[in-house]
Amino acid sequence: MSKKPSIPKGTRDFNPEEVSRRNYIFNVIKETFSLYGFQPIETPSFENSETLMGKYGEEGDRLIFKILNSGDYLSKVDEKLYLEKDSNKITSTISEKALRYDLTVPFARYVVQHQNEITFPFKRYQIQPVWRADRPQKGRFREFFQCDADVVGSTSLWQEVEFVQLYDAVFSKLGLKGVTIKINNRKILSGIAETIGAEDKLIDFTVALDKLDKIGEEGVKKEMREKGISEDALQKLQPLFSFDGNNIEKINSLKGLLLSSQLGMHGVEELEFITNNIETLGLQTASMQIDVTLARGLNYYTGAIFEVSAPAEVNMGSIGGGGRYDDLTGIFGLKDMSGVGISFGLDRIYLVLEELNLFPKTVSENSKALFINFGEIEALYAMQAITKLRKIGIKAELYPDATKMGKQMGYADKRNIPFTILAGKKEMESQTYTLKNMKSGEQQEVSLAALQQVLKAEN
Amino acid sequence: MSKKPSIPKGTRDFNPEEVSRRNYIFNVIKETFSLYGFQPIETPSFENSETLMGKYGEEGDRLIFKILNSGDYLSKVDEKLYLEKDSNKITSTISEKALRYDLTVPFARYVVQHQNEITFPFKRYQIQPVWRADRPQKGRFREFFQCDADVVGSTSLWQEVEFVQLYDAVFSKLGLKGVTIKINNRKILSGIAETIGAEDKLIDFTVALDKLDKIGEEGVKKEMREKGISEDALQKLQPLFSFDGNNIEKINSLKGLLLSSQLGMHGVEELEFITNNIETLGLQTASMQIDVTLARGLNYYTGAIFEVSAPAEVNMGSIGGGGRYDDLTGIFGLKDMSGVGISFGLDRIYLVLEELNLFPKTVSENSKALFINFGEIEALYAMQAITKLRKIGIKAELYPDATKMGKQMGYADKRNIPFTILAGKKEMESQTYTLKNMKSGEQQEVSLAALQQVLKAEN
Repeated sequence: MSKKPSIPKGTRDFNPEEVSRRNYIFNVIKETFSLYGFQPIETPSFENSETLMGKYGEEGDRLIFKILNSGDYLSKVDEKLYLEKDSNKITSTISEKALRYDLTVPFARYVVQHQNEITFPFKRYQIQPVWRADRPQKGRFREFFQCDADVVGSTSLWQEVEFVQLYDAVFSKLGLKGVTIKINNRKILSGIAETIGAEDKLIDFTVALDKLDKIGEEGVKKEMREKGISEDALQKLQPLFSFDGNNIEKINSLKGLLLSSQLGMHGVEELEFITNNIETLGLQTASMQIDVTLARGLNYYTGAIFEVSAPAEVNMGSIGGGGRYDDLTGIFGLKDMSGVGISFGLDRIYLVLEELNLFPKTVSENSKALFINFGEIEALYAMQAITKLRKIGIKAELYPDATKMGKQMGYADKRNIPFTILAGKKEMESQTYTLKNMKSGEQQEVSLAALQQVLKAEN
Repeated sequence: MSKKPSIPKGTRDFNPEEVSRRNYIFNVIKETFSLYGFQPIETPSFENSETLMGKYGEEGDRLIFKILNSGDYLSKVDEKLYLEKDSNKITSTISEKALRYDLTVPFARYVVQHQNEITFPFKRYQIQPVWRADRPQKGRFREFFQCDADVVGSTSLWQEVEFVQLYDAVFSKLGLKGVTIKINNRKILSGIAETIGAEDKLIDFTVALDKLDKIGEEGVKKEMREKGISEDALQKLQPLFSFDGNNIEKINSLKGLLLSSQLGMHGVEELEFITNNIETLGLQTASMQIDVTLARGLNYYTGAIFEVSAPAEVNMGSIGGGGRYDDLTGIFGLKDMSGVGISFGLDRIYLVLEELNLFPKTVSENSKALFINFGEIEALYAMQAITKLRKIGIKAELYPDATKMGKQMGYADKRNIPFTILAGKKEMESQTYTLKNMKSGEQQEVSLAALQQVLKAEN
């Protein structure tokens, strides 16, 4: 084989630095999930196809990766079906398993399957890869990690409050100041649609409203008119176009607007509960902002809707999102299980931290010191020191071959190892080690005890 | 849907306790890999089929999970081929990708693909799931994690020495004392075959020798005779059947046996280097044992062969293994890259730690304290304390609903949360919290500062 090997499009190799940086983000998220009482579960990478199919709409079904059955899979296709040569029809006969498309459906399946072992309300987090046969493009991959936390089994709004705090805690720990946690409520959107007499046009109406940022008031009104929303209705909507002020002012405007809609007022009360309590409890570096144009996940969210935006100076869009869904497990036959959850967008958070230079220097799992190899006897002397250093948690290694010193030094340089240690005949006689700082070039001859101290201090 | 959902056979859900325990093992292994200078990489879950197919033998090809192409995949199958209805022949046309079968071939692919970015010798570790369409049985799964460390680009035997130390370090940290690191060398096996004039029967010969434990000397001889190994050869083998004593004595016996085989003597010298240096450097709780019957991975190992056995009191067999392979990357066109690596068997290590009760109690990511919910105002008072506790790293949570106290207490019990905290009107007035130890039943009314101290101490 002479062609250089490659990987499937939309997938990625991660080198040591990338893995370390990704793990840094994962660890901050995990620790915070855990601090908030969430516990980890893991589900298999592939599920029975029937668990996944039909849960994400027609487009979703198409994007699910299917696994071919093993053995002589074609022998199970009956002759008549086979001769049709219709990929769609044959798939379910030759493929029984499919790769996880998200973490929510497997979580719902887990809850129903293990309902008798679970103590509700169940607070779980899950950080695993998912796969989508999407067209790969910048920032969109066929394999990527999702980081989800959900509570299932309680309708308490304290959970929404805690999720706002959790977002703030994670981004504060990551040093990413100034994120905006946008919040809305499905009931408010429904209430507005009801108030203006456009219940049947909820999706059209919210799709248009969602573009306020991009196309402005006139653009939105134009689109709404095209979708058949009346002038009278647009009149009633007017307050939304000048929807300014702080959260409390916004809540007051909404109360005026939604007076006649019970559902809408319900949504406003929920927002108010969350807003007031967050106000009292305080956030560290993020801010929470009511945004009635926020309309993600309208096919499943029934209450709160969250979306987190990166600070304005990076052009990244959403780095997290979530919401409340009243019937998480109904698809698997377990009714009346309200769920609420959030998700972190790992890949985008990574790009933001990179752009803003926020990764700590110590993230990399690099060795502290490389011992230069001068031959078998000297190497054993080095290995004795290395063995002791490792026992006290100092990352050290021996260059495996006794090659030219320049090559060994070059290796330390390229790997960004901060210290090299030279121990030849002279050092062996005096039971010392020559420690070289690779940045300053400075050298000192020290005892093993001193070596331990210097390297420990550098940790 | 009324049927309870399930997962594909051979796969597993992991509950919070299992995930925490698995992560505990992963973390010990990762930390130790890192301490020894290994750096993490990650590769995609699926590779192009051509990367994997043909690398694991015919049986391996059969066990690789193939992913069905997206869209109208049948349209690309030409009519003649289609009418043959031969699963084997059609597979490569309707499936271009396949799930990772192990971590070694993707690593080799990675090294070749990124050879210009890599500084050699390259010490990498990789901990990721692999998939095999094997018949599931006790302890054998279709999805399981592999934990591999390999060095590529150096033939230095110091690496073998370090891998022995690394095994010892990991199992010592896990508290698993008394594991045996068995070591052999492919060259010794080849040398023995050469010495007895049975070079062409290396595999038959080693397969029989490998059974010495189970079927005894006479059984092995009988099998060797059946495979056509002469009486004269068996005579020469006699020392192997009474192959006793410590490693140094074994090396001396081997030197006698292999005197006439240059290759065999080479293998003995390698073993001697490793043995002597391990002797000098010392091991913590494991022992290293030369075992000439060890014959795993003969199709690829060319030098050292490792296998780790759990302590005799648990009947588990191998919990790790590895070896040296002289031509890791040749399959992808990069010649002369010697590699050596080891692997940890996570699932078996888990079972051993469980059986010997070696998991630390603190492994679980459980909350320290549950605040009882007495209603909206009290809950806010509780949330103020919780917010502060979390800021200093104490895992605490609020029961989300103001239901009956018995139910809330029951929840703390079932989740094994060690403390509950009651804060009602009385406590709010005195700015205190009633802390209840769920084991002893003891209660005390304390300030927030005292609460922080007590819970911090329990961490």
